[in-house]
Amino acid sequence: MAEDLATLVTAIAVRARAASLALAVSPARARNAALAELAGRIDLSQDFLIRANRRDLSAAEANGLTPAQVDRMALTQERLTQLADSVRQVASLPDPLGEVLEETIRPNGLRLRKVRVPIGVIGVIFEARPNVTVDCAALCIKSGNAVILRGGREIFETNTALAALISESIASAGLPRDCVQLIPTTDRAALDVMLRLDSHIHCIIPRGGEGLIRFVAENSTIPVIKHFEGVCFVYVDKAADLSMAESIVVNAKTQRPGVCNAAEQLLVHAGIAGAFLPRVGAALAAKGVQLRCDGASAAILGAAGIASEPASAEDFTAEFLDLVVAVRVVGSLDQAIATVNRDGSAHSDAIVTADEAAAGRFLAAVDSAAVFWNASTRFNDGFEFGFGAEIGISTDRLHARGPMGLRELCSYKWLVTGTGHIRE
Amino acid sequence: MAEDLATLVTAIAVRARAASLALAVSPARARNAALAELAGRIDLSQDFLIRANRRDLSAAEANGLTPAQVDRMALTQERLTQLADSVRQVASLPDPLGEVLEETIRPNGLRLRKVRVPIGVIGVIFEARPNVTVDCAALCIKSGNAVILRGGREIFETNTALAALISESIASAGLPRDCVQLIPTTDRAALDVMLRLDSHIHCIIPRGGEGLIRFVAENSTIPVIKHFEGVCFVYVDKAADLSMAESIVVNAKTQRPGVCNAAEQLLVHAGIAGAFLPRVGAALAAKGVQLRCDGASAAILGAAGIASEPASAEDFTAEFLDLVVAVRVVGSLDQAIATVNRDGSAHSDAIVTADEAAAGRFLAAVDSAAVFWNASTRFNDGFEFGFGAEIGISTDRLHARGPMGLRELCSYKWLVTGTGHIRE
Repeated sequence: MAEDLATLVTAIAVRARAASLALAVSPARARNAALAELAGRIDLSQDFLIRANRRDLSAAEANGLTPAQVDRMALTQERLTQLADSVRQVASLPDPLGEVLEETIRPNGLRLRKVRVPIGVIGVIFEARPNVTVDCAALCIKSGNAVILRGGREIFETNTALAALISESIASAGLPRDCVQLIPTTDRAALDVMLRLDSHIHCIIPRGGEGLIRFVAENSTIPVIKHFEGVCFVYVDKAADLSMAESIVVNAKTQRPGVCNAAEQLLVHAGIAGAFLPRVGAALAAKGVQLRCDGASAAILGAAGIASEPASAEDFTAEFLDLVVAVRVVGSLDQAIATVNRDGSAHSDAIVTADEAAAGRFLAAVDSAAVFWNASTRFNDGFEFGFGAEIGISTDRLHARGPMGLRELCSYKWLVTGTGHIRE
Repeated sequence: MAEDLATLVTAIAVRARAASLALAVSPARARNAALAELAGRIDLSQDFLIRANRRDLSAAEANGLTPAQVDRMALTQERLTQLADSVRQVASLPDPLGEVLEETIRPNGLRLRKVRVPIGVIGVIFEARPNVTVDCAALCIKSGNAVILRGGREIFETNTALAALISESIASAGLPRDCVQLIPTTDRAALDVMLRLDSHIHCIIPRGGEGLIRFVAENSTIPVIKHFEGVCFVYVDKAADLSMAESIVVNAKTQRPGVCNAAEQLLVHAGIAGAFLPRVGAALAAKGVQLRCDGASAAILGAAGIASEPASAEDFTAEFLDLVVAVRVVGSLDQAIATVNRDGSAHSDAIVTADEAAAGRFLAAVDSAAVFWNASTRFNDGFEFGFGAEIGISTDRLHARGPMGLRELCSYKWLVTGTGHIRE
């Protein structure tokens, strides 16, 4: 049985590899046609998809998933329309493939071109989010990568229905069906097999919570691109415009508190803490944000009649993903930089200041994927960066760092042209 | 004891991380001064280094290492002079850090800059090659990365002596000594600990044989950049200039048969096999190359009186690293492309042809790190590509593919400047 599973998953990967070679040299026209076809089929198959999704939802309720979890799984007409639109949006983006990234002629006359090509075969491991199935399939087709999808058991029926549409769409555009394949079992052992098929799969992208990402990173012999959540800081410098600082802190914390680029940690320079903390404290409290404070900030807030709670040591490295913020007063820019680099997660961190030299030092010394000067951390996002699409925000330092769009789903190769060149 | 080891290795990694933050913002001048100092100290300390090396060599002979292995470990005055020169060469290269790779202003006025920065902390795992110690230390210092070196037990005394020089050189340039650290034990358990310190180490580069690379890839939770060897092909098309083809095949096979970009596999189009195989067979035989042939090529060579052996199935996917080549006749360009993609290792593959359309198809469809047209596979090399230095040739598709120089030892970060931008 376990051997059958290994055979099954290996065969999927071998077929994906063969399909990837054809997809890599396919014209953009065919890849875009597959996406247009997929969007159309999603529109036309809403009933079919919602019926499949309902089977998952019934099982989810019977299995005691929370209403929030069930809601995230649910496909509605509105969500399906959005999903189809997002596929059309990916189709409309420029083709990332074939661009010459560098070109040089060596002193010996050898001509080198570095050209963007697909990575090859990508494995996506995800949980109970049916939009991931479609988004990842669309981004991979567009970027010329074959993809193997391994979704959570909670949405197995939904995924099977979506995979059928995807497969038909690819085939109708004349591309190999095996470009997008779903692992047709929710057996955990299938994942273990998949994560070790490094001869056939070139990259694994886990999409989900920290537990999933950690499991994948620990068990995969295939390179993994991780998308961990963020412990993001806003540092309000002594030279900050306080009105701007208030607006950025409130935005970074409250505009969407459950996402990875939301601020979790506030650092305020001692020189302006007396003036700034009461106003930002009142503004955050008005949005329902709980303040967890160090002694200095608690004293200032208390004197202004604003409630706060004492922070624990854990709060200062915490990712709350909720209406909670940890607050500290720092004595200097250097202390702020050291605190961010020590307690943060190198995701998205901001300084608010009118002092260009201070901003320059913060931007240079804070070792994060995106460092912001007078802007909200919430802008660390593929759409906001103009990528047009995003598979996630990489927290790795290799390959892609920060938002991953179509170009970050690509590798490159070197094309070298000579006239009979041999090496002496 | 195991706990002590974990504490020891973890402390090294924590110190490396702290040092990396200082190194990342250090001026190129300081990093170059450290390298100049190191080169000078290697020159001045030849006796000290050779004495330490002799202790390793004595143990190696006592432990029954082969003369070839012992020779690779040995430091001589000449090799030390070369080593010092290679450090000076790295110092003379342009600073890879700080370059703005992209700059855009979004419609909302947000200014984005993508800037090259160090990866952070790199772990290098290697075997009994003392030059790796110095080369990797030099490349990491130059690219602003802290490095933790874990060399083979066979050269522990040599490495300890080299690490002392490196440490002094760094300190004399005003940089943190912890930028370069050697794991001060050869206990295998230290490696197991190191490979799981993903909070402190950002990238692992194994330098050595397939067994070492595979062990590291299977046991590391840190991203690994692999440098496997190559099963490289030369395809001689029906439109090849036969004289050029002969020269390229002989060069790719024999110029240095023990390296990863040497050719191992020869494919010849059926249309010119009768004319080409006897002449290339004679030329290869004259260089002492053994020909392992399929039926068609054996028949042609036999008719011309050139000796060959029948190839086994394994020979057609083998990396001989020796004066051996596997030879096949193919019926078409497409068959050649499919054969390379199926049986090769996606390292370095070449076509020899005067037909531009055929070359274009081969370059596009062969999915290898470097694809050559009318040039020897031996040019897949950081120095030949003009990188000025090389830490290896990556066989991965993420981050770096092909030669890895200073720029490939870097990551990037996004610097985002606003004027109070918040997200709606």
